[in-house]
Amino acid sequence: MRMSELSRRSGVSVTTIKYYLREGLLPTGRQTAATQAEYDEQHLRRLRLIRALTGVRGLSVSATREVLDALGEHDGDTHRLLGLALGTIRLPADTAQDAPETAEVDALVKELGWQVHQNAPARGTLAETITSLRSLGVPLDWHTLLPYARLAERTATLDLDQLDGIEDPLEAAERALLLTVLLEPALMALRRMAQENESAHRHAG
Amino acid sequence: MRMSELSRRSGVSVTTIKYYLREGLLPTGRQTAATQAEYDEQHLRRLRLIRALTGVRGLSVSATREVLDALGEHDGDTHRLLGLALGTIRLPADTAQDAPETAEVDALVKELGWQVHQNAPARGTLAETITSLRSLGVPLDWHTLLPYARLAERTATLDLDQLDGIEDPLEAAERALLLTVLLEPALMALRRMAQENESAHRHAG
Repeated sequence: MRMSELSRRSGVSVTTIKYYLREGLLPTGRQTAATQAEYDEQHLRRLRLIRALTGVRGLSVSATREVLDALGEHDGDTHRLLGLALGTIRLPADTAQDAPETAEVDALVKELGWQVHQNAPARGTLAETITSLRSLGVPLDWHTLLPYARLAERTATLDLDQLDGIEDPLEAAERALLLTVLLEPALMALRRMAQENESAHRHAG
Repeated sequence: MRMSELSRRSGVSVTTIKYYLREGLLPTGRQTAATQAEYDEQHLRRLRLIRALTGVRGLSVSATREVLDALGEHDGDTHRLLGLALGTIRLPADTAQDAPETAEVDALVKELGWQVHQNAPARGTLAETITSLRSLGVPLDWHTLLPYARLAERTATLDLDQLDGIEDPLEAAERALLLTVLLEPALMALRRMAQENESAHRHAG
C-alpha cells in the first residue's frame, strides 16, 4: 500500500509516519519510484505497536526505539527473547540501581527463590520504592512485600499462559511485551477498584 | 523551625519550598515577623509527601495539588475519605471514560460483585486498555481479566490490612494514598521479576 493508505488504516498522520521513518522506528518501505514506496501489513502492525507504546504508556520515542530494537535483535533463543521483552527492558518507572535498599530486594528474591538477573531494572525500582516509603514514615521491608510478591508470581503465571500456543518466538515476544507494558495500567486500575470495593465492605454502615 | 531548617531537614531547596508555598501545595507557616515564619513537623511531613508524589510517581504540580486537596477536604466519613484516597483520584494513567469497551468493564464488575463508583477513573483506564490491546490483535475481554481481578482483590486486602490500627482517619487516608500511589511501581517491578523467573522455569534447558 502507499503511505496515504497506511496513514488512513493506522490513523497516524503522514507527517508522523515520516517522523517515525526518519527516527528509525518504522522500517522503510519497498522503493517503487524515486519518491514512492510500498508498505505492507508488517508496517501497519508496527505502527500500531508504536502508537500503543507512545500513547497508552507514554513512552518517549527513544524508549520506544529501545524496546523495538530489543525485539529485533533476537537470536532464536526463546527465553532470552522473552527475557528481553519481559524483564530487562528499561522503562520510565525503572530507576537507578544505587538505592540503599538493594539488600532488602536481595533478601526478598532469595526468600522467593526467584531467578532474576542481578541487573534487572525492576530491582532498582523496588529498592527505590522502599527508600521512598520509609522516608515518609511507612515501615516497609521485604517481609511486607513477600505476600505481594506471591501474588505477582500468580499474575506472571497468567501472563505467560497467554503466550501458550504462539509458535513463532518473535510473535511470542511481541505479545509478551504488549501484555507486560500495556496491561500495567489495567492491573493498577483493577487494584484501585478492588481497594474501593474492599474499603466499602470494611466501612459499611 | 525557620525555612532554612525546613529546607535542610527535607532536602528541598528554599527556592522550591517558596514555589510550593506560592502554588498552595504547602500551607503557610506561622508569621513571626514581617519577613519571617515558623514551620513545624506537619510542614516537614507535607513536604516529604509532595516530594514523593512529584518525584517517585512523576505527578505534575497540579495533579499533586488535586490529591492533597482531596485529603484536606475530608468530613469525618472514613469510607468516603478512603474512597477519595484510593478510588476516585484521577492520576496520569487514568484516561477518558468514553472508550467503547465500557460494557466489558461493566460486565466484569458485575461478575465480581464489586461496589465501584460508576465515575471511578479506573473504569476508563481499564476500558482504554482493552481497546488498545484489541487494536493490536490481542484478544482481551472481561473473561480474560477475571483471574487478574481476583488477584487484585487479594492485593487490595493486603493494602487495606496495612491501615489496621491507624486511628486517625486523616492519617489512615494519607497512608492509603501513599500505599496506593507509591507502591504501584513496586508492584509492577515485582510482576516483571516474577515473569522473568516464570519464563526461566518454562524455557529451561
